[in-house]
Amino acid sequence: MAPSGQLNETINSSRCLSLATPTTPLQIRPYEPSDWPAVWALLEPVFRAGETFPHDPAITPEQAEVAWVEQSQAVMVAVDATGVLVGTYYLKPNSLTLGAHVANAGYVVAEHYRRQGIGSRLCQHSLQTARRLGFRAMQFNLVVSTNIAGIRCWQRNGFQVVGTLPGAFRHRQLFYVDALVMVQGLVEGPKP
Amino acid sequence: MAPSGQLNETINSSRCLSLATPTTPLQIRPYEPSDWPAVWALLEPVFRAGETFPHDPAITPEQAEVAWVEQSQAVMVAVDATGVLVGTYYLKPNSLTLGAHVANAGYVVAEHYRRQGIGSRLCQHSLQTARRLGFRAMQFNLVVSTNIAGIRCWQRNGFQVVGTLPGAFRHRQLFYVDALVMVQGLVEGPKP
Repeated sequence: MAPSGQLNETINSSRCLSLATPTTPLQIRPYEPSDWPAVWALLEPVFRAGETFPHDPAITPEQAEVAWVEQSQAVMVAVDATGVLVGTYYLKPNSLTLGAHVANAGYVVAEHYRRQGIGSRLCQHSLQTARRLGFRAMQFNLVVSTNIAGIRCWQRNGFQVVGTLPGAFRHRQLFYVDALVMVQGLVEGPKP
Repeated sequence: MAPSGQLNETINSSRCLSLATPTTPLQIRPYEPSDWPAVWALLEPVFRAGETFPHDPAITPEQAEVAWVEQSQAVMVAVDATGVLVGTYYLKPNSLTLGAHVANAGYVVAEHYRRQGIGSRLCQHSLQTARRLGFRAMQFNLVVSTNIAGIRCWQRNGFQVVGTLPGAFRHRQLFYVDALVMVQGLVEGPKP
């Protein structure tokens, strides 16, 4: 994981006003190895459900740590006012060298803390982080079409659906469902 | 690389009639380790050019062997009537477990053997191989928009553009150019 010591910050605003509670103090800071047990507690039910991420639902904690932390360029966690770790995201290049100026990210919010705008704050924070790291765009490759809350949140935060992949995700409950490709540019004005 | 001994076959037909020379004998067979020097001779100028694949243009032969062979589920080579290795493709799952029913493939044809339909034959062969291996679709994630010959060939062979990724490829000569996502379903009829 790349150093990200300068990315620690607190975000109190949210563009997802309809869902967010902007007054909730929420610290978003870089992941530390001691966070892993709490991060795994967030990730495990999401991976096991097999509804949003393509990872093996039987993934082990060790495999999940490689996937979420080791293979990422930056990992952040969101901590609420009581010190509870309520969310996390990873950020990494979406492709090899000649596509590495496009970022990819993934987000998880603890089940009991959803519908409070935390996903939106993580998304906004990840966009800031991506800009700071020099990425020119962010792309989600396999947004499960049944993940309506996620799709709406990302659209509110500037992402656009650029394509639909028929039956590209094997949903654990619904079998083969469509997946979306979503993209957001991070640079303004004419190309250099 | 997965065993693929039953995939050896000769293809003499092509749907790219306008470009193909269907009477040219062309054997398409599984890659063998002794093919590597000839395969690398095909791949090297393509990677160095930085116009179609996202790999580092300074990729080493060892890195290329990992990327093309070791990380693939099947690798094939095309050999002409005189025994010259004139093309190759790889085939692999496009994503993790819950997206692993979609295949991904990449093709290279030797420079002096282009515009003879060999790319089309490799594409058709890869679709057959993907069906045989149980894939339900094939997807290309980052088709460089300036690769007109490739796009036309894949469209002739059943692929559709499902989305455009603005500026997603850093072309070595043209800087940031758009890339396309192309998809083809491999199963007929209603979903199981």
